[in-house]
Amino acid sequence: MSSQNFTQQLTKTVDELSKPQTLQGLFHEHRDGDPLPSSKELEEIIELTRSILFPGFYGMTSVNIQTIRYRIGVDTERLYKLLCRQVMAGLCFNEDCHCANAADTRCCLQEEAERIAENIILKLPQLRKILSTDVQAAFDGDPAAANLGEVIDCYPAIKALTNYRLAHELVLENVPLIPRMITEMAHSETGIDIHPAATIGTHFTIDHGTGVVIGATCVIGNHVKLYQGVTLGAKSFPLDKEGKPIKGIPRHPILEDDVIVYANATILGRITIGKGAVVGANVWVTRDMKPRSKKYKQNKTDILDINYDYGGGI
Amino acid sequence: MSSQNFTQQLTKTVDELSKPQTLQGLFHEHRDGDPLPSSKELEEIIELTRSILFPGFYGMTSVNIQTIRYRIGVDTERLYKLLCRQVMAGLCFNEDCHCANAADTRCCLQEEAERIAENIILKLPQLRKILSTDVQAAFDGDPAAANLGEVIDCYPAIKALTNYRLAHELVLENVPLIPRMITEMAHSETGIDIHPAATIGTHFTIDHGTGVVIGATCVIGNHVKLYQGVTLGAKSFPLDKEGKPIKGIPRHPILEDDVIVYANATILGRITIGKGAVVGANVWVTRDMKPRSKKYKQNKTDILDINYDYGGGI
Amino acid sequence: MSSQNFTQQLTKTVDELSKPQTLQGLFHEHRDGDPLPSSKELEEIIELTRSILFPGFYGMTSVNIQTIRYRIGVDTERLYKLLCRQVMAGLCFNEDCHCANAADTRCCLQEEAERIAENIILKLPQLRKILSTDVQAAFDGDPAAANLGEVIDCYPAIKALTNYRLAHELVLENVPLIPRMITEMAHSETGIDIHPAATIGTHFTIDHGTGVVIGATCVIGNHVKLYQGVTLGAKSFPLDKEGKPIKGIPRHPILEDDVIVYANATILGRITIGKGAVVGANVWVTRDMKPRSKKYKQNKTDILDINYDYGGGI
Amino acid sequence: MSSQNFTQQLTKTVDELSKPQTLQGLFHEHRDGDPLPSSKELEEIIELTRSILFPGFYGMTSVNIQTIRYRIGVDTERLYKLLCRQVMAGLCFNEDCHCANAADTRCCLQEEAERIAENIILKLPQLRKILSTDVQAAFDGDPAAANLGEVIDCYPAIKALTNYRLAHELVLENVPLIPRMITEMAHSETGIDIHPAATIGTHFTIDHGTGVVIGATCVIGNHVKLYQGVTLGAKSFPLDKEGKPIKGIPRHPILEDDVIVYANATILGRITIGKGAVVGANVWVTRDMKPRSKKYKQNKTDILDINYDYGGGI
Amino acid sequence: MSSQNFTQQLTKTVDELSKPQTLQGLFHEHRDGDPLPSSKELEEIIELTRSILFPGFYGMTSVNIQTIRYRIGVDTERLYKLLCRQVMAGLCFNEDCHCANAADTRCCLQEEAERIAENIILKLPQLRKILSTDVQAAFDGDPAAANLGEVIDCYPAIKALTNYRLAHELVLENVPLIPRMITEMAHSETGIDIHPAATIGTHFTIDHGTGVVIGATCVIGNHVKLYQGVTLGAKSFPLDKEGKPIKGIPRHPILEDDVIVYANATILGRITIGKGAVVGANVWVTRDMKPRSKKYKQNKTDILDINYDYGGGI
Amino acid sequence: MSSQNFTQQLTKTVDELSKPQTLQGLFHEHRDGDPLPSSKELEEIIELTRSILFPGFYGMTSVNIQTIRYRIGVDTERLYKLLCRQVMAGLCFNEDCHCANAADTRCCLQEEAERIAENIILKLPQLRKILSTDVQAAFDGDPAAANLGEVIDCYPAIKALTNYRLAHELVLENVPLIPRMITEMAHSETGIDIHPAATIGTHFTIDHGTGVVIGATCVIGNHVKLYQGVTLGAKSFPLDKEGKPIKGIPRHPILEDDVIVYANATILGRITIGKGAVVGANVWVTRDMKPRSKKYKQNKTDILDINYDYGGGI
Repeated sequence: MSSQNFTQQLTKTVDELSKPQTLQGLFHEHRDGDPLPSSKELEEIIELTRSILFPGFYGMTSVNIQTIRYRIGVDTERLYKLLCRQVMAGLCFNEDCHCANAADTRCCLQEEAERIAENIILKLPQLRKILSTDVQAAFDGDPAAANLGEVIDCYPAIKALTNYRLAHELVLENVPLIPRMITEMAHSETGIDIHPAATIGTHFTIDHGTGVVIGATCVIGNHVKLYQGVTLGAKSFPLDKEGKPIKGIPRHPILEDDVIVYANATILGRITIGKGAVVGANVWVTRDMKPRSKKYKQNKTDILDINYDYGGGI
Repeated sequence: MSSQNFTQQLTKTVDELSKPQTLQGLFHEHRDGDPLPSSKELEEIIELTRSILFPGFYGMTSVNIQTIRYRIGVDTERLYKLLCRQVMAGLCFNEDCHCANAADTRCCLQEEAERIAENIILKLPQLRKILSTDVQAAFDGDPAAANLGEVIDCYPAIKALTNYRLAHELVLENVPLIPRMITEMAHSETGIDIHPAATIGTHFTIDHGTGVVIGATCVIGNHVKLYQGVTLGAKSFPLDKEGKPIKGIPRHPILEDDVIVYANATILGRITIGKGAVVGANVWVTRDMKPRSKKYKQNKTDILDINYDYGGGI
Repeated sequence: MSSQNFTQQLTKTVDELSKPQTLQGLFHEHRDGDPLPSSKELEEIIELTRSILFPGFYGMTSVNIQTIRYRIGVDTERLYKLLCRQVMAGLCFNEDCHCANAADTRCCLQEEAERIAENIILKLPQLRKILSTDVQAAFDGDPAAANLGEVIDCYPAIKALTNYRLAHELVLENVPLIPRMITEMAHSETGIDIHPAATIGTHFTIDHGTGVVIGATCVIGNHVKLYQGVTLGAKSFPLDKEGKPIKGIPRHPILEDDVIVYANATILGRITIGKGAVVGANVWVTRDMKPRSKKYKQNKTDILDINYDYGGGI
Repeated sequence: MSSQNFTQQLTKTVDELSKPQTLQGLFHEHRDGDPLPSSKELEEIIELTRSILFPGFYGMTSVNIQTIRYRIGVDTERLYKLLCRQVMAGLCFNEDCHCANAADTRCCLQEEAERIAENIILKLPQLRKILSTDVQAAFDGDPAAANLGEVIDCYPAIKALTNYRLAHELVLENVPLIPRMITEMAHSETGIDIHPAATIGTHFTIDHGTGVVIGATCVIGNHVKLYQGVTLGAKSFPLDKEGKPIKGIPRHPILEDDVIVYANATILGRITIGKGAVVGANVWVTRDMKPRSKKYKQNKTDILDINYDYGGGI
Repeated sequence: MSSQNFTQQLTKTVDELSKPQTLQGLFHEHRDGDPLPSSKELEEIIELTRSILFPGFYGMTSVNIQTIRYRIGVDTERLYKLLCRQVMAGLCFNEDCHCANAADTRCCLQEEAERIAENIILKLPQLRKILSTDVQAAFDGDPAAANLGEVIDCYPAIKALTNYRLAHELVLENVPLIPRMITEMAHSETGIDIHPAATIGTHFTIDHGTGVVIGATCVIGNHVKLYQGVTLGAKSFPLDKEGKPIKGIPRHPILEDDVIVYANATILGRITIGKGAVVGANVWVTRDMKPRSKKYKQNKTDILDINYDYGGGI
Repeated sequence: MSSQNFTQQLTKTVDELSKPQTLQGLFHEHRDGDPLPSSKELEEIIELTRSILFPGFYGMTSVNIQTIRYRIGVDTERLYKLLCRQVMAGLCFNEDCHCANAADTRCCLQEEAERIAENIILKLPQLRKILSTDVQAAFDGDPAAANLGEVIDCYPAIKALTNYRLAHELVLENVPLIPRMITEMAHSETGIDIHPAATIGTHFTIDHGTGVVIGATCVIGNHVKLYQGVTLGAKSFPLDKEGKPIKGIPRHPILEDDVIVYANATILGRITIGKGAVVGANVWVTRDMKPRSKKYKQNKTDILDINYDYGGGI
């Protein structure tokens, strides 16, 4: 420390920062021995998931079809262990769990964590199946994609969807906190913000992706495509008597199968965009759209040339 | 090297790349012994700040209320040391500092760096206080937030604001370069680009955040909320005789208390958005708005249902 | 494992995940000994390139003008080695290369990889020259920039452009996959998505940058400036008989010299924005614009004050 | 793999290596969730212990007397956590612990591990006290030592004794395996092999140390000094009916206070070297020595000059 | 640099250090692309070998008998790859290999390296078998060993023998350099220096081990036991006309089955120690010993109590 | 923590461990900003020295004769920086340096540290020259050495001597502490303990090396060879009035040119072993030996066959 005087001030500052009253709600006190939600472990969970589902693309080692079982086996066991710990961390994070008999609670949470981690492991083949439809959709829809491998290796949407689809399974198992951390990691990496509670069908794709927001109660069908900057948001949400938003009410759009939404379009509220409808770039939608309907910016001079093939694909 | 021939070419290329004339303005020559602006040290500064202000959320170790002083004490001392070095690096970066008596200059810069680092340390309790209002505001405004902990752990706005509020203190101390590096790190992590010189009140929140831009001379009151894609920018800036922009003129908006700006709205120029005003999604504003006024897209078919409760919250 | 029972199920799941038929197109099988496309090595390639082109800014060590040749020499040799490996990895990734005589193919690919890596090394002085025009343009155009050093150290556009300009050279050498991985790394870091095949002139700059998309067949002149959220995209693309997009057709805009495009503007299709034209914020353009023409949002109440100086610079 | 053929052989080899019968006694199967004895965690335990007992010497950070509590507090908490885990790992390693009710056993082992770790923590001040006598003795006995700090920083004996004194406390608590791993780490680092079960008094010192061996049932008084290559071993040990050595019988020497043993001397069997006795270099002793007696090599030509002051100190 | 003047001197020093004539024989110039002998890769080779042969003891992860194949499979593939590279590095190190047609040589060395690495992999089950006899012998001979696991985890002899037995296989395949590097790593870790060319039977054990030296042409039978500080060395070696030692002549002892050599004994020259012979501590032997003969220090006062059971076991 | 109760005890223990009176002489308090003696930085210093002196052997990168200057230049600059810091740390460690005007002292120590580091750098070519004689001697004397490269890569003596020769230069510059730390690092790695103050000529070699001890006032000529376990020690040292050893008196042997000392020999006191003398294995010497004299164990039955060629080389 630069001076005796500053050391004293530093000590006072540390005392101030350690006072319980300055820590109200900002301090995460753990029961000793409980695992902590850990970005580092979640990153490893994501890496393992990607490497199990798309072998040979992520990860450092080459694999061949004869010996691939070894690598998938080791990765799956490690994934199971990490999931147990992080699911447990999520369950413990729930503020209500500090019950009377801590030891018993911990035991029962541990069992629940293991059961949930087992379920996730058993769903991996299904996760690969649905993600392979997303990969195919991205490839089919982009003239710039050279092959499936390039899509898996480079496309941010595949990374965001892998995180989302894993996180969504954890939401279905009622794991707190962890799913949101997983989708936020994809948000930071790709600029695509999908709430893990949203429901999304097969063959889903997002081009470029930066700025896309998909709200918690969205329901998205199969073969839907979004471009960058698209918002699927809430228009308003009812408040309770204290003026706070009421939680859990459906407030985001439903997109039926085959919908396309072009760049920077904003769709707000619990409305339905019918099967095969097309929402043009920069358009703002707050009412239902009929199946196969189209909506573009009504700018006379620019839009005369719009026709059925029009896309705004980028 | 693959061949004798290429080795010769490589040597020539290295010579070319090392010529002072090819390095004009692109080469950062340090006085020996001066610390370097270092992303790695700044990342550690951010981690320490987050871990001191929100103990138990970031970082690897669990803490309890009895022993938390140890951890905060160690982290604060380390933070002080790193701040000394990086503030010094910022002061040295200033091109004017290569004065006649290098040894003396360094001494006086070193003292200044220590004084500034001390000031920052002493402001940590105040930083926690104001950030706790941001956390509360995010929680109150989002039906999807389960508890304060989830907001601290997952919400990109809290990360961006922690960086901004630390960087802003360094701006107030006239530290060059380092504040901008700190907010750019948050920009890269969250897609939220807040200039460290902007002035922002309490209970500030940004939902989703990707694509938000807040310019250097913005003045934002208390209880303001922004959504993703909002730009608080300059409309134009006067040029000097050589056609270069004149630096330091107020050119970004003033947002008074309780203003809400929905997704992708663009507010440009030194205008004032009055207390409690609401700017709808995708709206474009370049003139003052009166207190409690509202502005939405004037799209007849869509906007009939807008009423006082309307939000566009997502 | 928690139980005998789960171990059996895990084994079955691993078997399922290892079946060739579930891996169709999702499995990257390498010839033994071929290098793998590696994010980690590509990150080092980027760091070395940045540190060679802008010595003293990136990297951990200080340098002085007398001894800088040592550092540049070592970094350039290392860059050459890594480029050889990653270019080779890209060439091997091409699905057609698994030809009859594997040993011969590998030999000839290896030679090609070395030749390409040599070419890239020899172009480094030229890369520094063009990037120095980008740095200068960013500095000249931003009233908030204190000096060139701040631009190099902090501005996301410089990071994105360094990646793009390196990746573009690899595109010109017909290297598959690797260029796209390099620009995606910048996309993740900065939110700026430039396709490596796009053509971009000197003195190019992007302010803030989050959400910018520049398509694969764009042609951009000198002294062009974009703001955040700008899309230079395709309006539609012709499909082949199977309904799949035909690859390689010019479908993105041409921006001539001195064009400025303000925040969140969307420019779609193979149109030409003439020399010196200005595209206002949030504007949507799908037709050619004449040289020096301007296009702003036609919003009567807001736009009366627009004049020649208007910018929307942020 | 280089060929289809080798892949098949590799698969067979892996099968062979995984067969339970080839793994008899060579395979450490853990109950899921049990911690593993970990060299890495034990290394951290040693580093923490050294850094708590001799602050400012080991470890990366400088400390001052005002703020030292923070550092010692953090290190002590971390040490406690690691000790809990490694003690638990030691208890679980005991082959007899795989009892009927695994869950119950684990609970009771966990409690025992915590109790033992607590005891070790509470003994730290006492450990520092006794080690400070060892440091003083090394300094007093070596003309080459400049100050206490040099002894703490450089002398292998201090490193070996810190490990031994910690490990010995764990032996007193009946922790299996872990104490031996800790002293073996010192053996590898310093060439000094002290069995953790040996009993050693205060002011003990070993000069140079390489090749020193101190057996499990040794009893060493205060103010004893050994030089390099000294063996305190067993002369013979009784065998049981199956010809295997009977475990736990006292079989190593007793050295009373103030004994000095010079380089490469070998002392074997349960004999007593009386208070103040001196054993010369390379001497071989298998019988009791009286207090203050001396024993040198009886080499007429060389040894005439031996007198009371003789040392052989190096 | 502290001064212009020193920078010039440094530059001169670097020039001096880079002159070919100052590098005569001290500079290892590689053909580009050849792998380098790498301590780091050899350490990983050792870790993998230990972890394959004794699963669950070394390494970070727990394993169970159902899923152990995955871990062994992955480790074995990785071991194969690293062995290929390091064996190749050894083959390239041979100075004679810089032949006319470099490309061809490299090809044929690569094939040889792969063949050798395959052979080593196929010998792993046999290596485990012989090492298990060493583990058993160490356990049987030491009253202080609690169980086989403790021997595997803690005993330096097991570490040294694992390295030796792997290195010896590489010697049998005529790999230069690499085997010696592997046994030197064990020498540094344990103080036991076994030349990789020595021949050693089953059930071999070394107690404590520090200072043991086993020369290149030693031949050791089954069930042999050494204590610390034992030297099995050469007594003299014939010189050629230039006064340099002639390489490759048998010059170290032969120890037949069941021999025991106690601490610090020195056995020199191509002599034979017959089956079951016992060499006492500190004894010096340069002549053949008959089967079942014994040799102790002829020290009247001390040695009277020596009898058949005598050991000096420590 | 497991319980409220233990937390209180832990807090008390931490208080106890932080009391100044329990830290007497065991606490290294630094002036803020002073560098710390750091094993990690010293390890890097050793690695750089080895890699500069023997390019291509240590370190990860291959080098060729055309581009080797880059690598040596970068390594030398880095070495200079680290030496400055560690020499400074050594100078500050000296307890007398906490003088009245701390700022001035630090300045003058800093200058001294830079001067010393410069001197060391300028001596690197000379260090390489003398070490090359050691390499040659090891190769010439060992029938098992295949080439110079194997000696450099594998022989512990070369590692120990590189550390010693660097450390000895620092002793000549009167740097406290650091030289001893450097030779202790070699002691730990190789079992060879050379005091950095010893004086050693050219063509020095040590075979195997474990257990060798060379005292602080030894003087060793050219072409000297030692085997494992050799001690060059003090026989006794005079005590001062307080019974403490008097520092700095010559007390270790002088070995003239061409002396050979075989395994485990012990040479004690300020005696002179004349030019070309030979000391046999396990021999104990405390008196001068004449030039070309020989001394072996006088064991009638064994030693009859000793003749001029005898070596005991191993």
